[in-house]
Amino acid sequence: MSDQTGVTAETLGHSLLTQFDGQNFRQVTLPFIDNLDKAKEAVKKINVAAANSAAKPIVFSTMVQDDFRAVIKESNGLHLDIFDVFLEPLEQELKQKSTHTAGRAHGMSDIEGYMKRIEATNFALANDDGGISRNYDKADVILVGVSRSGKTPSCLYLALQFGIRAANYPITEEDMESEQLPLPLQPFRDRLYGLTTDLNRLVNIRRVRRPNSPYSSLKQCRYELRAAEEMYRRHQIRYINTAEMSVEEIAAHIIRDNDLHRTELP
Amino acid sequence: MSDQTGVTAETLGHSLLTQFDGQNFRQVTLPFIDNLDKAKEAVKKINVAAANSAAKPIVFSTMVQDDFRAVIKESNGLHLDIFDVFLEPLEQELKQKSTHTAGRAHGMSDIEGYMKRIEATNFALANDDGGISRNYDKADVILVGVSRSGKTPSCLYLALQFGIRAANYPITEEDMESEQLPLPLQPFRDRLYGLTTDLNRLVNIRRVRRPNSPYSSLKQCRYELRAAEEMYRRHQIRYINTAEMSVEEIAAHIIRDNDLHRTELP
Repeated sequence: MSDQTGVTAETLGHSLLTQFDGQNFRQVTLPFIDNLDKAKEAVKKINVAAANSAAKPIVFSTMVQDDFRAVIKESNGLHLDIFDVFLEPLEQELKQKSTHTAGRAHGMSDIEGYMKRIEATNFALANDDGGISRNYDKADVILVGVSRSGKTPSCLYLALQFGIRAANYPITEEDMESEQLPLPLQPFRDRLYGLTTDLNRLVNIRRVRRPNSPYSSLKQCRYELRAAEEMYRRHQIRYINTAEMSVEEIAAHIIRDNDLHRTELP
Repeated sequence: MSDQTGVTAETLGHSLLTQFDGQNFRQVTLPFIDNLDKAKEAVKKINVAAANSAAKPIVFSTMVQDDFRAVIKESNGLHLDIFDVFLEPLEQELKQKSTHTAGRAHGMSDIEGYMKRIEATNFALANDDGGISRNYDKADVILVGVSRSGKTPSCLYLALQFGIRAANYPITEEDMESEQLPLPLQPFRDRLYGLTTDLNRLVNIRRVRRPNSPYSSLKQCRYELRAAEEMYRRHQIRYINTAEMSVEEIAAHIIRDNDLHRTELP
């Protein structure tokens, strides 16, 4: 529950609940609870859920205003609110009262950061696999990998979330047969970053796209992954295996390993 | 600081710090602190920062393991950890010990959710402005708006984060002169959602793209925004003004207003 989008409350709740195995949680997000009537309405929903279940609802909330939190606390749920817990030590440390203003966390305060994200997104779209232009000279990082190794979603995520200009280079059949670094990449060795994945995962993902084709065959996938990893090692390109990673995780690795500058959070 | 990507710690810290006006914070993310040596290294960094600043470093952390947290707490910072605070009440409520396993929150556990995001992303890419095919019949929602009103980043974000298939429809000159709902949209009235923005904002954004052009002129932008909003009202299309919103916020509104089903968080 949140007086704004609920992104923080969802993230928090999710992190905490993954620590409890074997439980099934039903997740409900109640965003934009920004007046007392909505808060009372939310309490009713929680109480209905409490009445219909053997388990007590667990309420992760980021309600900035004390009076809204007071209303929510009256519900029949376990109430965990980060502002309840962390604002006081922060106020003491910063020797300042907090503003108690809703909707600051994920708002659009700076147009500059916004423009940077949008430009980076356009850059990623224009320089994706299919794109003719590649503009590698303007890229912060160039992701290299075989088809379906995670390049496109990673580029888009880096752009949308962090305003980072990520281009991508799909390794071609020709590249796999050569010991040379692909020509278009040669001037940009310092900004290359390789992606690889597990064989079974690549096969499964490619099968969704083109079942029963050489493209998704075990043999072809094995050949391509080996060739890609050989290329990374031969030319000392850092790389990660994305098989077990979400796009968030891939992005975090890319940012750290390439020491990339991100725009501040919106 | 986190034993994983740091996404939760960043989100949390950011939400809390926006409650304190007039302070300048330097943000440093220390991700993947997943062994005791790295934890000790992190403490050194915090202590260096503490020694070089009049202000005490504020450490937002999501360290799952008690022994790592114990190390971090020895630093000269103010230490705020969600697991410290919230795990105990959760363990009591769920009558279960937490697993204390790192790296569960943003990992790639389910391939199904992953594939849904990837497919939704491909859908958004294939059905973006420039795309020939539109596949509106396969869309969960169709975003309608003038150029630069926020359609493309919203579609991509909905796909990448939530596995939602969002298509978009750019309003044409011809549409603006007609009182009819654009033909391609007519079979899909129930899944249309309008975006609009503020005049100055649209002008500024368009100027970045094409300065000194009719496209970015005050007159043209005013005309287009009025025509778009008229269309929304005439055909009872719900819409929002994205001017003050981040892409996260726009997405949260679209999901709520259209009652869209999201994949679970990764």
